[in-house]
Amino acid sequence: MKRDKILGERKIIELIVSRLDRMPTMPIPFGDDVSAYDLGNEKVAVLKTDMLVGKTDIPPGMSVWNAARKAVVMNISDFAAKGVKPLAVLVSLGLPPDITKKDIEQIGNGLNAGSREYGTFVVGGDTGEATDLIISVMVFGLAQKEEVVLRSGAKPGDILAVTGLFGKTSAGLRLLLGDHKASKSVQSVLVDSVYMPSARLPEGLALAQSKGVSASIDSSDGLAWSLREMGQASHVGFVINYVPVAEEAKKFAIANKLDVWDLTFYGGEEYELVVTVKPESWKKAECAVKNAGGQLLRIGRVIADKEIFAEVGRERRNIEPRGYEHLIR
Amino acid sequence: MKRDKILGERKIIELIVSRLDRMPTMPIPFGDDVSAYDLGNEKVAVLKTDMLVGKTDIPPGMSVWNAARKAVVMNISDFAAKGVKPLAVLVSLGLPPDITKKDIEQIGNGLNAGSREYGTFVVGGDTGEATDLIISVMVFGLAQKEEVVLRSGAKPGDILAVTGLFGKTSAGLRLLLGDHKASKSVQSVLVDSVYMPSARLPEGLALAQSKGVSASIDSSDGLAWSLREMGQASHVGFVINYVPVAEEAKKFAIANKLDVWDLTFYGGEEYELVVTVKPESWKKAECAVKNAGGQLLRIGRVIADKEIFAEVGRERRNIEPRGYEHLIR
Repeated sequence: MKRDKILGERKIIELIVSRLDRMPTMPIPFGDDVSAYDLGNEKVAVLKTDMLVGKTDIPPGMSVWNAARKAVVMNISDFAAKGVKPLAVLVSLGLPPDITKKDIEQIGNGLNAGSREYGTFVVGGDTGEATDLIISVMVFGLAQKEEVVLRSGAKPGDILAVTGLFGKTSAGLRLLLGDHKASKSVQSVLVDSVYMPSARLPEGLALAQSKGVSASIDSSDGLAWSLREMGQASHVGFVINYVPVAEEAKKFAIANKLDVWDLTFYGGEEYELVVTVKPESWKKAECAVKNAGGQLLRIGRVIADKEIFAEVGRERRNIEPRGYEHLIR
Repeated sequence: MKRDKILGERKIIELIVSRLDRMPTMPIPFGDDVSAYDLGNEKVAVLKTDMLVGKTDIPPGMSVWNAARKAVVMNISDFAAKGVKPLAVLVSLGLPPDITKKDIEQIGNGLNAGSREYGTFVVGGDTGEATDLIISVMVFGLAQKEEVVLRSGAKPGDILAVTGLFGKTSAGLRLLLGDHKASKSVQSVLVDSVYMPSARLPEGLALAQSKGVSASIDSSDGLAWSLREMGQASHVGFVINYVPVAEEAKKFAIANKLDVWDLTFYGGEEYELVVTVKPESWKKAECAVKNAGGQLLRIGRVIADKEIFAEVGRERRNIEPRGYEHLIR
């Protein structure tokens, strides 16, 4: 989304939501990572749909296999953030007229790969013609109502944590789009982070089961934007004491005279989870993620003031509410 | 879909499906109008997603309100064909950069209108940027497994029936796209059928509840194509004894020297239901639809030979497996 995030995507969603009648019982409010339908007995059907668009979401060199896989992964990531297991995937495809048989097979393979990686299956969909490649994915799941981790539960004093280090996709995208430089090995890691993103599903499920998480969101629009969204939903702010930058992103920043913080906070298409954890539950949550094969990194804490800033050593910076910008306007 | 329907959309779906691992318990096979997830206890979650694409699906003069409403209606129509009540709607929007605030509000209003008309609500979605307007809708519902009416149950001897008359949208589209003529009153009916399609939800729910329907499909790709699809899924053929053409379509055909059969069988974006009914259940099914405010028109019968033809008076014609073609290649 290349428009200014504040007057752009947020405003668009607000405008549309303002036109909608509200379902009397809506277990998850508009604007969270997923939606839900109340099944009774404290159970909910969890639903998500998001699309990948060729010209704005597929960087140079990304194969249709990678694109199709990513279209699934980005939807699964929202399930991961809510701690809900995805059960079934549907796909609606818009295909340009010049698409080849091989491309279509690769799209099928990519959709299957993305689904199977996270234990689910494609169960249906539809195709039609479009002027650009459109891969619209929907995911269905089931959950106990109180187990779904919303964006809105962060409380002052909670620990702010993430499931991994940032900046690789931001650097990787710059490599793919421009004339930045990196050593062969760094380049390979950075570009791979763009082509083969992962959803933190085992981590998200473990965190939800640990019951220690008060709020959660994925970082698909960048760390800064995720903090802004979670802050607004929870009516809190954040202070960050540790900048979670990946080693390769740091090397890339130095080699190209870029700001490490920029890469870390204002990237996007990065599917880490950003969570808040009650202090007394920290050990349990950290352990749960470790047992799931991941890591939980403490990067700061929740504060009552609705501001977001970082204090690291003697440096203090405001984290602006800027989000990831897609490839073309 | 402008490609040849046989080597086009069907082939594309076959190619993709051939690449997918099968979920061990798939209550509804690939290729039916909707998909499903087995909830146990004979219950299924019913899922559908299909997108509307600006350049191929929005004819001249159609407002974004109408387009957004139609994107919902075309998905609801598939639920109608299966006899399943839609419970929740999600929308993923791809918006061109030059879209206006007013357009966005109208899209919100149209999505709401389409959902509320059929007793459901929009509960969530996502937006992003695209080079063309994309409205991808998903619908969720619940059903008893054995109540979902598939395409595959038609048996030789069953009565073939439809919920309304055909040809209006086909004629309306020609009016909007070319230099065809029609009187003011006929024109208004034809164009309205394009801008304001209806899903036959009350009829579909009533038919499913009557238990007399052996197979069902909607006619969104044209009557001929629906018969082909239902014939293939059920391993049967059809003989048609009555050409269900709308009065206004007939007038349009005469005024423009067009073939009435062409308008009736090879139109599209028409959301009637095409069903087969066990002869002993005909009265019950007919009554059920009438009580729901609709009509059930007998147009022929199911035959064992896998061919589709019409015999009306002394005229006999094969119904070719041609489907509706979208606006542009």
